[in-house]
Amino acid sequence: MTARKQLPDTQAGMRRRNLARVMHTVRDEGPLSRAAVASHIGLTRAAVSTLVDDLVRWGLLEELGPERNGATGRGRPGSALAVSARGPAGIGAEVGVDHLAVCAVDLRGEVRARAVRYGPNRGRAAEPALAELGLLVRQVVAEAEAEGLWAAGLTVAVPGLVARDARTVVRAPNLGWHRTDLGALLSCGLEPTVDNEANLGGLAELWLGKDTPPDFLHVSAEIGIGAALVVDGRLLRGVRGFAGELGHVPVRPDGPPCGCGGIGCLEQYAGEDAVLRRVGLDPGEGRVGLLAERAGAGDEAVRAALHDAGTALGIALTGAVNLLDPQAVVLGGELSALAPWLLPSLREELSGRTAGRSCEVSVSRLGPEGPLLGAAHSVIRAVLDDPASVAERNA
Amino acid sequence: MTARKQLPDTQAGMRRRNLARVMHTVRDEGPLSRAAVASHIGLTRAAVSTLVDDLVRWGLLEELGPERNGATGRGRPGSALAVSARGPAGIGAEVGVDHLAVCAVDLRGEVRARAVRYGPNRGRAAEPALAELGLLVRQVVAEAEAEGLWAAGLTVAVPGLVARDARTVVRAPNLGWHRTDLGALLSCGLEPTVDNEANLGGLAELWLGKDTPPDFLHVSAEIGIGAALVVDGRLLRGVRGFAGELGHVPVRPDGPPCGCGGIGCLEQYAGEDAVLRRVGLDPGEGRVGLLAERAGAGDEAVRAALHDAGTALGIALTGAVNLLDPQAVVLGGELSALAPWLLPSLREELSGRTAGRSCEVSVSRLGPEGPLLGAAHSVIRAVLDDPASVAERNA
Repeated sequence: MTARKQLPDTQAGMRRRNLARVMHTVRDEGPLSRAAVASHIGLTRAAVSTLVDDLVRWGLLEELGPERNGATGRGRPGSALAVSARGPAGIGAEVGVDHLAVCAVDLRGEVRARAVRYGPNRGRAAEPALAELGLLVRQVVAEAEAEGLWAAGLTVAVPGLVARDARTVVRAPNLGWHRTDLGALLSCGLEPTVDNEANLGGLAELWLGKDTPPDFLHVSAEIGIGAALVVDGRLLRGVRGFAGELGHVPVRPDGPPCGCGGIGCLEQYAGEDAVLRRVGLDPGEGRVGLLAERAGAGDEAVRAALHDAGTALGIALTGAVNLLDPQAVVLGGELSALAPWLLPSLREELSGRTAGRSCEVSVSRLGPEGPLLGAAHSVIRAVLDDPASVAERNA
Repeated sequence: MTARKQLPDTQAGMRRRNLARVMHTVRDEGPLSRAAVASHIGLTRAAVSTLVDDLVRWGLLEELGPERNGATGRGRPGSALAVSARGPAGIGAEVGVDHLAVCAVDLRGEVRARAVRYGPNRGRAAEPALAELGLLVRQVVAEAEAEGLWAAGLTVAVPGLVARDARTVVRAPNLGWHRTDLGALLSCGLEPTVDNEANLGGLAELWLGKDTPPDFLHVSAEIGIGAALVVDGRLLRGVRGFAGELGHVPVRPDGPPCGCGGIGCLEQYAGEDAVLRRVGLDPGEGRVGLLAERAGAGDEAVRAALHDAGTALGIALTGAVNLLDPQAVVLGGELSALAPWLLPSLREELSGRTAGRSCEVSVSRLGPEGPLLGAAHSVIRAVLDDPASVAERNA
């Protein structure tokens, strides 16, 4: 028998959830008057006013001054509310195989500061890489503060398995990191929340994608191949935080050995290094652009390699679609730039194997920006989802 | 941008959720006094009393009379509360390939009536099979009513894909049903809710299994192979209701064709028919028992077939574990009786391919009873999770 949580429903909890509803409504539909917010969320104007007063006091909403009458001209004009452009900023950071990046996003979802450093991190020790990242974070936070924002939190995207403590990188084979505690090593004045880049890429797609459905599978295809499983608008993380390891789904059970200990994993057929190896190129920065150039110019060897990578993706996704029955599959990550040559065989394999149970495959518009934006937006989402937490922390 | 639900948190909704908390508390911990319930769920004694009064009036709780003083002897004695043994009954029904079954379960989780008819349903038209099932339902409902219970609902388990309308069987290849509307064809005085047998088997494991964790993958291995994906105590259904089709995960992408339109699906290696074909036996009732007998007697051909079926299960589960990262895999369904010969190769394959990301594999204690019990308990769970719905319906 599974224990059921027996927490009571309290007035305080209800108020907390209604504060979040006001924030989301103003952000999605604003600027809005108090009366319009009340009508949107089905509470009385008086109830909404006390919620709004707190949100203004905490610096999360701002009053734009008396609102002009709307189209109908009915009712008294109220002060229009908008989410603050000088409130909390979400700081996102990314440790990529070939770069480090940091950005600051405000409550309205706009990027207000950013910094990037190119340079190989593969095999580089964690300490110097994280020292450099820490400096970039401090620089971006200072820029955000100069614009009147304050850092509400920091989320770091890494290409590896992250423990459920959200600070330890259990294993990042393409960096060479193992049991790396970012909470201890990253010194930048903010406590980092660490997450897998494929998870954050998927969340970015959910939050920022156009017409993204609430149930989809987002594939981050690059050197590693990760997936984010989004079910009913929520990311499925798994008990240890290791869900979404699409790259290690067996494609051919007697295929080549994989660094993970498995055999014939998807990454051995469709990962960036596997594709480069197949066409005789060494791994390195800018390789995806080179592959796209050659495929575009009609290079048959590159086209065949990408065709076969698409086939392998289609086989692995057949398993995933059979298990999860998502609304859509969205291809993101570096390799999404190769979609014109990957998608035909991918789609053919998937639809041929899942007759009547298939689903649409599309390409992300966020491309390689997804994980960094997802990291920054995850901080902003936490503020929108529980605005009272900001007041508690700043108290 | 995904739309966020903007429903207000209301007093009525809070009351409804607290009624459910009282029911679950009394069921899991009872008999309990009103004061003990209040302390368990963190509400005042007065608040709990008004909730309890309604639940007693609706026939969901009963008062056992003045409670004797507990070990401490402190406090005034109150009337002990228990869930009613003469209240609603959940009616579960199952359409199996070789049998029809119906049972009635009370709020305390006890089976109070049951009926089974053996006979082949493979290739039998839906109308006569459902007419026979309807008679069994009426018989079980009459028996339950003779015990003072009343039927709160009917859930039917079927071996096939069920649409999200919970009444249409989209496809049940092992029955030969296609687009079969059980809501229209099953006449028994109750509106049926239809669900896939693997889903209900997994829910039975969640609700009735001993020490079942809230995140697991339940495999229903029989002629078809289905899985129930339980994440954080909730069944993952997929957008069309087709999640958990483990039987059609590709194991060897160039293997034999499958009835689903795919190639090299798990069912072609580990389904009951595939194993029987491999050892030269025709499909039919009681075949699993025969396989167990022969394997137990040392039949090398049967043992080799089961070893290879276990290997195929291990390969498909490697993909599932990589994608979902569950706490455990539980093997259920008819084929779980063959676990001694399936598990060694299954475990070897899974742990060899998922070094450090593996999870425990165990065998369900419910065996082939799971889907029927899951069906009946799903009705009872709906009453426990929203007791006010009973009052509304009976009003």
